Amino acid sequence: MANFAAVMTDLGTMELREVPEPTLEPGQAIIAPRAVGVCGSDVSYFVSGKVGPFVVSGDFILGHELSGDVLAIAPDVTNVKVGDRVAVEPGTPCRDCAQCRAGRYHLCPDLEFLATPPYDGCLVQRLAIDARSLHVMPESMSYEAGALLEPLSVGLWGCRRAGLLPGDKVLVTGAGPVGILAAEAARAEGALEVVVSDVSETRLELARTHGFHTFHSNEIKKQDPSFDVLLECSGVPQVLNAGLHLLRQNGRAASIGIGKTDVELPLHTLNWNEITLATVNRYNNTWPLAMALVASGRVDLSGLHTGSFRLSESSQALLAGRVDEHAVKSIIYPQEV
Amino acid sequence: MANFAAVMTDLGTMELREVPEPTLEPGQAIIAPRAVGVCGSDVSYFVSGKVGPFVVSGDFILGHELSGDVLAIAPDVTNVKVGDRVAVEPGTPCRDCAQCRAGRYHLCPDLEFLATPPYDGCLVQRLAIDARSLHVMPESMSYEAGALLEPLSVGLWGCRRAGLLPGDKVLVTGAGPVGILAAEAARAEGALEVVVSDVSETRLELARTHGFHTFHSNEIKKQDPSFDVLLECSGVPQVLNAGLHLLRQNGRAASIGIGKTDVELPLHTLNWNEITLATVNRYNNTWPLAMALVASGRVDLSGLHTGSFRLSESSQALLAGRVDEHAVKSIIYPQEV
Amino acid sequence: MANFAAVMTDLGTMELREVPEPTLEPGQAIIAPRAVGVCGSDVSYFVSGKVGPFVVSGDFILGHELSGDVLAIAPDVTNVKVGDRVAVEPGTPCRDCAQCRAGRYHLCPDLEFLATPPYDGCLVQRLAIDARSLHVMPESMSYEAGALLEPLSVGLWGCRRAGLLPGDKVLVTGAGPVGILAAEAARAEGALEVVVSDVSETRLELARTHGFHTFHSNEIKKQDPSFDVLLECSGVPQVLNAGLHLLRQNGRAASIGIGKTDVELPLHTLNWNEITLATVNRYNNTWPLAMALVASGRVDLSGLHTGSFRLSESSQALLAGRVDEHAVKSIIYPQEV
Amino acid sequence: MANFAAVMTDLGTMELREVPEPTLEPGQAIIAPRAVGVCGSDVSYFVSGKVGPFVVSGDFILGHELSGDVLAIAPDVTNVKVGDRVAVEPGTPCRDCAQCRAGRYHLCPDLEFLATPPYDGCLVQRLAIDARSLHVMPESMSYEAGALLEPLSVGLWGCRRAGLLPGDKVLVTGAGPVGILAAEAARAEGALEVVVSDVSETRLELARTHGFHTFHSNEIKKQDPSFDVLLECSGVPQVLNAGLHLLRQNGRAASIGIGKTDVELPLHTLNWNEITLATVNRYNNTWPLAMALVASGRVDLSGLHTGSFRLSESSQALLAGRVDEHAVKSIIYPQEV
Repeated sequence: MANFAAVMTDLGTMELREVPEPTLEPGQAIIAPRAVGVCGSDVSYFVSGKVGPFVVSGDFILGHELSGDVLAIAPDVTNVKVGDRVAVEPGTPCRDCAQCRAGRYHLCPDLEFLATPPYDGCLVQRLAIDARSLHVMPESMSYEAGALLEPLSVGLWGCRRAGLLPGDKVLVTGAGPVGILAAEAARAEGALEVVVSDVSETRLELARTHGFHTFHSNEIKKQDPSFDVLLECSGVPQVLNAGLHLLRQNGRAASIGIGKTDVELPLHTLNWNEITLATVNRYNNTWPLAMALVASGRVDLSGLHTGSFRLSESSQALLAGRVDEHAVKSIIYPQEV
Repeated sequence: MANFAAVMTDLGTMELREVPEPTLEPGQAIIAPRAVGVCGSDVSYFVSGKVGPFVVSGDFILGHELSGDVLAIAPDVTNVKVGDRVAVEPGTPCRDCAQCRAGRYHLCPDLEFLATPPYDGCLVQRLAIDARSLHVMPESMSYEAGALLEPLSVGLWGCRRAGLLPGDKVLVTGAGPVGILAAEAARAEGALEVVVSDVSETRLELARTHGFHTFHSNEIKKQDPSFDVLLECSGVPQVLNAGLHLLRQNGRAASIGIGKTDVELPLHTLNWNEITLATVNRYNNTWPLAMALVASGRVDLSGLHTGSFRLSESSQALLAGRVDEHAVKSIIYPQEV
Repeated sequence: MANFAAVMTDLGTMELREVPEPTLEPGQAIIAPRAVGVCGSDVSYFVSGKVGPFVVSGDFILGHELSGDVLAIAPDVTNVKVGDRVAVEPGTPCRDCAQCRAGRYHLCPDLEFLATPPYDGCLVQRLAIDARSLHVMPESMSYEAGALLEPLSVGLWGCRRAGLLPGDKVLVTGAGPVGILAAEAARAEGALEVVVSDVSETRLELARTHGFHTFHSNEIKKQDPSFDVLLECSGVPQVLNAGLHLLRQNGRAASIGIGKTDVELPLHTLNWNEITLATVNRYNNTWPLAMALVASGRVDLSGLHTGSFRLSESSQALLAGRVDEHAVKSIIYPQEV
Repeated sequence: MANFAAVMTDLGTMELREVPEPTLEPGQAIIAPRAVGVCGSDVSYFVSGKVGPFVVSGDFILGHELSGDVLAIAPDVTNVKVGDRVAVEPGTPCRDCAQCRAGRYHLCPDLEFLATPPYDGCLVQRLAIDARSLHVMPESMSYEAGALLEPLSVGLWGCRRAGLLPGDKVLVTGAGPVGILAAEAARAEGALEVVVSDVSETRLELARTHGFHTFHSNEIKKQDPSFDVLLECSGVPQVLNAGLHLLRQNGRAASIGIGKTDVELPLHTLNWNEITLATVNRYNNTWPLAMALVASGRVDLSGLHTGSFRLSESSQALLAGRVDEHAVKSIIYPQEV
């Protein structure tokens, strides 16, 4: 049986292609991805060939938000078994460096992360991965939900980095998947009031169906500076700047959204209110909590999955957000060619 | 006996003038300032009439780094007595608001702070102040040292805000009084390697006499990105930006220096290393520690006091740094007219 | 109009008596208590004359969990106005000592706390109190709920002291009002699984109606050592000991329940798992959060208020728990003589 | 060349015996221990056959505080090379479990720790060990100092667990090697006043030569309750109890000393002052800091090494503390048979 992958061969160009069958090394499992979510970074690689300092060179396979089935395990693997349905943490750290020893494995300089050059991603029918990255899903959890644990992890880690405290009033700027899930994470962790802003009425409506207050980004300068925490998920420099102005004394911000390069910050205002700005690089150790929050119903994923695509339709999946303002999260099903 | 003050009457203009005798309200003490240090914010008010959003309007008395003698106390005051030699914390909070209740009295919106409009400062022979702001000095401590507890407090609070941990490698940018004292604070709190940068060879030499490694600011882009903590004390936007590039993973920065307005920050780099940038507004609850560190010899104040001035020479004291590159900290003696 | 109080005149003896009208000092308000909850410490004072080192001497007025109406304010009071319905924080700190300055006002050595000798409590029709202790209730909040913010505060502070983290699995030992509200607090702050134990089937049933898993205290030694956090609310030494055995590595415990004197702890086991045991003295700065949690419905108070009493029935209210196993929280209405 | 070990064959009995040559597995190095410190747990195993739940069964090799030379490395090892002089962290974690992933590898349930049954220790001439446990020593550091990094690590981790803050006043109970090094660690991390107690005048004198204030344990009940932090290193239950009484409000204690089983604690007093009691299980990630502190002279090891022994004298080394009140730390030199 062929192992098909959606291979990015040039900017904006993708083709279905047979790739070599993966082989098992010690500690690894072979998995069949069943649901792969499309992330903004996938789109950025596809359209511009890069994300920050990472540049695509040659053929490249995208995709890093996934769940799947365990097809095989190396003899030394004990945490999963063949047939398990698993959610997958896409980074494999060295486990040896100073960062790994300190428990900050997500900052490991040698992290091998799916769909981050030079490492291929998961828009493929079978791949080998460190078995320790696999988290067995409860029966009731869908593959789509399993894939969404990745952006939920971003939101959870953003809350942690921001030093979110129970009772905080939280502003989430940007109502894409990460923004909605950051807002869900904040609420699940005890935030008492969560307000979401965006430029899209469609996305604000989605935020409202999740029970959040909203305002349009145009109105951001009219808001009261009354927030304890800012979770910046839009990636727009001006929004980060404006959001920081809305924090009160001792306010804490997490800069989650990618897309920003150099950003101008209102340092005088930040100093006066003694704001702390934490930056965020993915997540650390969030899958167990993310899975439990979804399984228990404390985090609501409804309305996020807005498009379903075969592996051969990966290109449309990636560009869905550019042609349909109602698109939130595209999911690709790699086993359906 | 007249109560003389050095009154700023216009930009760059100061005159010695008799002001009303202070009166005691409950909870207050009347003190005679004996040593007043000149701070960069005093200079900024004197030269430009403002610091951030605070604008001098009409006659104004500068000075907020001080020690002195207790001349009188209100009947309800118990923590000091007449004749005590005291170091003075220059801010009086409301003690009632949400920030005060949370122990963050330095962020009290109603903080009355010496030499911050509309509140006059301490370049005066007698003034009334909340007795709770007074900290009795050990006999061995000089008035000059007592005044220097203020900039040392800035350094100590900067370390706290940066989340300094024992063993950290620390970069201090800016070797003025705050920079040197931030470096001293970091070392006293267990930083293992402290490196100081500045544009002035004179100040770098001062840093070296305090036992710190140094480099010239011109060389900042050639340094290894190997620091755990940045204490930014120069107030120069480009230095903050360059310093942030020198932090390693999980690095923490405190932006201490004033003078910056909007600052461009390398957000991509910060995100990748998951840097935390804490801003700093003065200090909180630092006088007991500052006093103990100086009294025990763990913090070295030598070489900082570079000029002595009578009250009538306050103008020269304020401008000393502009005419003499060897000037570090000017001290004014208000009892010497 | 007379100002009646329920005065404890001897162990187990209480009489209705007219007391002097309170007078306003600066910063104070006069309030009319509308609902007063009975606390275990009230019962202990009433029955044994003491709680820990505090001993009743002479006539004494009990009661410290309360809400009420503002009848008058001193001219300098601005945070409440006549007619406001308020929940009351029962401790008045000095706001000057080292603990107060550090934001730990609940550890102020000069804290004046209602119904803690030598300070009388609130089983009285009118009393004067520092206006800063008053928190205006939303219209929708009942006086009974307002009084219950006090034990909820104990639960919230216990969670804070325990270092509760979102996702933690929590064991609450003791299902009295504090135990139920500590469990509610933990859930509101993101605990994913909360299990409650008690010796009383009635109370376990109450815990189940609040949605918690339960087990009988007899079964405590059969439980899995799988908890991240223990909130000990029973005050029984053996329960604390047994509960500590149920924590996993890095487990954190808060000892909330009073009643314990010297307690034997399994130090070897604690060392091995590196457990942290935090003790709890009331609460700090919890009323705003407690009020918001109840007002928003995130904390459920149902089933806790089980008995209503006039002021003249205070004695029965205090002893209700001793004669009726279904009694949870007695509420006394001081305005109903 | 034979590989000799000092093998404990029965309680109090040890014999020099040839053991098999170690073999290299991937990731390992073979090292020649050059200096091995004797720890109280070694003595406990030797005399009583157990430490807490760990019981010696059959022949057993003691020793876990060590430095040595790298003799060989597996092909995949890169962090050390043949000929390196190394200090050795004696525990090897699985790096996979929940504790390891969270950075708490010292709580790994599968930790393989030298001289903790069933794992043999380092009183042997050659042994294989995970190369990641090796820390290359600077040239200036002696083997004896390298071995002492282990008890220093205990002290450093105790400070961390206690939440030591710069400026704290610290009481260290017990002036054995761990107590002295805990006191050194506290001072290096910014403790302003460190007081040490013990029952032995000899040890108190040692503490004084290290610059600490001291008092005899008999006087512990007469001390002022004025400490912020207690580092309990004596292992005597009554000392822990008495030391906890000496903490002031918000005091923090770390229970470091082994030897205690069930301990009676004054819970009422702890609650009133809101004390936190952290227990300590060895250390986490402390070698780099320990090495830097010793190399920089910020931690003083003088006077600790009081006895030198050949491998064949291991039994005397273990019992030195029982026959000589001046003995502090015995060091065994395994390469000297």
